[in-house]
Amino acid sequence: MSQLQIYDSHQGALKTFTPLKEGHAGLYVCGPTVYSHVHLGNVRTFLSFDMVFRYLQFLGYKVRYVRNITDAGHLIDDADEGEDKVGRRAKLEQVEPMEIAQRYTVNFHDVMRAFNTLPPSIEPTATGHIVEQISMTQQLLENGWAYEANGSIYFDVDAYSKVHPYGELSGRNLDEMRSGTRELDGQTDKRSPIDFALWKKASEAHIMRWASPWGEGFPGWHLECSAMSTKYLGTSFDIHGGGMDLKFPHHECEIAQNKGANQDGGAQVWMHANMLTLNGKRMSKSTGNTLLPDELLSGDSPHLSKAYPASVARFFIHQAHYRSVLDFSDEALQAAEKGYQRLIHAWKALSERPGEGPSKGSFDVDHWQAQCVAAMNNDFNSPILIAHLFDAVKAIQADQQDRSLLGQSGAKVLLQHLNAWIFDVLGLQDQMRHAHAGSQKALDAAMGIVLQARKQARDQKDWSTSDAIRDQLAAGGIQVKDGTDGSTYTIGE
Amino acid sequence: MSQLQIYDSHQGALKTFTPLKEGHAGLYVCGPTVYSHVHLGNVRTFLSFDMVFRYLQFLGYKVRYVRNITDAGHLIDDADEGEDKVGRRAKLEQVEPMEIAQRYTVNFHDVMRAFNTLPPSIEPTATGHIVEQISMTQQLLENGWAYEANGSIYFDVDAYSKVHPYGELSGRNLDEMRSGTRELDGQTDKRSPIDFALWKKASEAHIMRWASPWGEGFPGWHLECSAMSTKYLGTSFDIHGGGMDLKFPHHECEIAQNKGANQDGGAQVWMHANMLTLNGKRMSKSTGNTLLPDELLSGDSPHLSKAYPASVARFFIHQAHYRSVLDFSDEALQAAEKGYQRLIHAWKALSERPGEGPSKGSFDVDHWQAQCVAAMNNDFNSPILIAHLFDAVKAIQADQQDRSLLGQSGAKVLLQHLNAWIFDVLGLQDQMRHAHAGSQKALDAAMGIVLQARKQARDQKDWSTSDAIRDQLAAGGIQVKDGTDGSTYTIGE
Repeated sequence: MSQLQIYDSHQGALKTFTPLKEGHAGLYVCGPTVYSHVHLGNVRTFLSFDMVFRYLQFLGYKVRYVRNITDAGHLIDDADEGEDKVGRRAKLEQVEPMEIAQRYTVNFHDVMRAFNTLPPSIEPTATGHIVEQISMTQQLLENGWAYEANGSIYFDVDAYSKVHPYGELSGRNLDEMRSGTRELDGQTDKRSPIDFALWKKASEAHIMRWASPWGEGFPGWHLECSAMSTKYLGTSFDIHGGGMDLKFPHHECEIAQNKGANQDGGAQVWMHANMLTLNGKRMSKSTGNTLLPDELLSGDSPHLSKAYPASVARFFIHQAHYRSVLDFSDEALQAAEKGYQRLIHAWKALSERPGEGPSKGSFDVDHWQAQCVAAMNNDFNSPILIAHLFDAVKAIQADQQDRSLLGQSGAKVLLQHLNAWIFDVLGLQDQMRHAHAGSQKALDAAMGIVLQARKQARDQKDWSTSDAIRDQLAAGGIQVKDGTDGSTYTIGE
Repeated sequence: MSQLQIYDSHQGALKTFTPLKEGHAGLYVCGPTVYSHVHLGNVRTFLSFDMVFRYLQFLGYKVRYVRNITDAGHLIDDADEGEDKVGRRAKLEQVEPMEIAQRYTVNFHDVMRAFNTLPPSIEPTATGHIVEQISMTQQLLENGWAYEANGSIYFDVDAYSKVHPYGELSGRNLDEMRSGTRELDGQTDKRSPIDFALWKKASEAHIMRWASPWGEGFPGWHLECSAMSTKYLGTSFDIHGGGMDLKFPHHECEIAQNKGANQDGGAQVWMHANMLTLNGKRMSKSTGNTLLPDELLSGDSPHLSKAYPASVARFFIHQAHYRSVLDFSDEALQAAEKGYQRLIHAWKALSERPGEGPSKGSFDVDHWQAQCVAAMNNDFNSPILIAHLFDAVKAIQADQQDRSLLGQSGAKVLLQHLNAWIFDVLGLQDQMRHAHAGSQKALDAAMGIVLQARKQARDQKDWSTSDAIRDQLAAGGIQVKDGTDGSTYTIGE
């Protein structure tokens, strides 16, 4: 069987995944800054890494998946100036900053649950690791890669870059970085504009503050991920992931901090998920070209003709490779919904397949499964996996006419594989399977009576009654399908 | 209108609630230690304070509700010895302690969501407040109420009790406490057996550890709540709540720490929720006389004849006053379920009441509402509130025969009040109201056809068909009720 290959954004090439500890995989992913609602682009990133987490588990790895919550240290201005994002929101609303963090953490978890992501193994917060961040800052000072200035500590990029290749991840060189930075305006204590803060002295007005060896202050944004990945995964670990926009400066700074403090850059492999556009344009609140997860699920958006179930959105997202730009649009979602329903209907038909036909069929399930694994082993290529799933859909449909296609044991094995791919790896949810058990039982009972009445009417060629039943059901979103074994029903969306 | 009175466990008397800052209320509640599943007794405590939170909001207060998560510092042995509860579990399972904390935090949130509790305003963790706990320990050392011994810091109860009444909350005196404690066995650094740890030196084997001015160690369990309530609610705040079992030593120690560090005991009012027994006996894992929330909701327990919806359990819990012992049993839950359904059916009938009758009816809605408020203002007396809700149920039923009882505007106002009491204050959920919109629509459509077919059969005196329909529906948990306006259906549990 093929081996898992992952595209490493650091080396810019596919690498065979060789875990540091056999049978185990360590995965660190940058989570949300909890000062506002996550947007759909964030959701895409988290769904991509949820799929990575699920596939590593599918392969049998014991995965420690760490995804942090940034509840302090992320400043409005990337150049280490301005207010804390959480703190600013708190000041505007006249509440305690941790009330803001709590509100958006709860919302983030609600969104993650709606999209059926698995909780990470550990979900550490920046405020929960002040001690560790102070220790790492002390280590960087000791090692000579940082300096103190007026109660703040900065990373000394010039000193570091004489020994280590700063810019190695993003591919930027120091001159480019300098020209991309505003001139020092005299307000800052930095020696060089490309230096970055490890610890900032808290001004009078700054509400989020902690005691430190350098007086009251707060950690720089980049530091938390270095401190928390080191604490929970070690100085060297398998995979670091995040959105493409975090490559520079955030991840570049992480590598420098890790090398500076631990003599090790941390992750063996860097993975970056690509962005989501809406109707061909970058999402942006100011132009209104934006879509929140809640708007997608409720349909309450000028960009949508209707609501979409989370599984349809998830199916749509996994139909693109995580490293490709993906464009969201109402038309594209409608198409994804049709595909998703075809897949689920075929799965359902297979799960209810009568034990007919020979034991072994002509469809080569093992070969098909090997192709699915090969697709996912090729840098988590979920669109190719989904294409293979539709090969199975075709086989299931053909088997309904000719039971020798799958055969009895072939059908059984294919169903096991499909369960794993659809529900475990892709994280889709069958609405029928997961509906509230009580109301499902009730609906089945009521529909039993309805389908019986419909059959009676049709047997008696009482077309007006059978048409009336069909129309009433359609108004309730119920489609009836007539098969050789009788009629079944599905709830549409 | 009456004023809110709260029973203060500290003074042992009802006190008129007078918030420190007008219009605001600060509420601190001790949350779970996340090393195992919460049991139903914990759930009762959190539901009681959820009701307090909801009622304070109902009264118009802007509430800052802080409920912590204990993810470190809680030792197996209450006498400050033994392993950390979270750390021990982690060692047994060979995982990182924060994986244990995350697993049970996620489970706790799932349970809280199932029981429809509102998320607190802030949910701080012990590990997230190491800096604050170290600062408070330093303050206690400076103030002379603590001493260092071999890298651990202990609270000096003897010194403190010369100035402050240690035991003031639990009513214990020092001699009683001393006799309730094992003799010092020479293994401890404590000067007196009733001293308690503020900071413990970490032994080689202790995995959860942080840098401190006294070397690597971890905070004592009692300290986190003092540090976090001070940080988020101030040195003096309105209400501190928790389970009765936390009164001593946990809350007693909190008061001592707060007075020692802040010259203020913290909470103005202490509230303690009483315990839950099962079939007349204390719940205990070792005897099997225990029930987990999941078992209640799934019915998967030898103590239950069936599954109960979370709202029924919640209704049952609020039928007792939070300060009374409450006994859980299958029979009691069945009775509660009947009551809950009567209440919800009456509410539903009122919400669908046709606009008939005079504008003003004979039922005095304002007087009734004042009685409801008076009940809750009397130390959150939810059983009396529920008794008044059943007065409204009777009025709604009588009004179905004689529309002059409620009248049109009376019915409207009563519905608004009932919505507030049932859903906002008691936190019950109407299963029908909150069922998945799609499947509800489908069920309504299917049942429309079924009830039509049933009516036709009955009109034609075709009793065998109408009986068969009734039996098939009953098998699906659907009850049909025939009223003067036609038939309606409900899903039973």
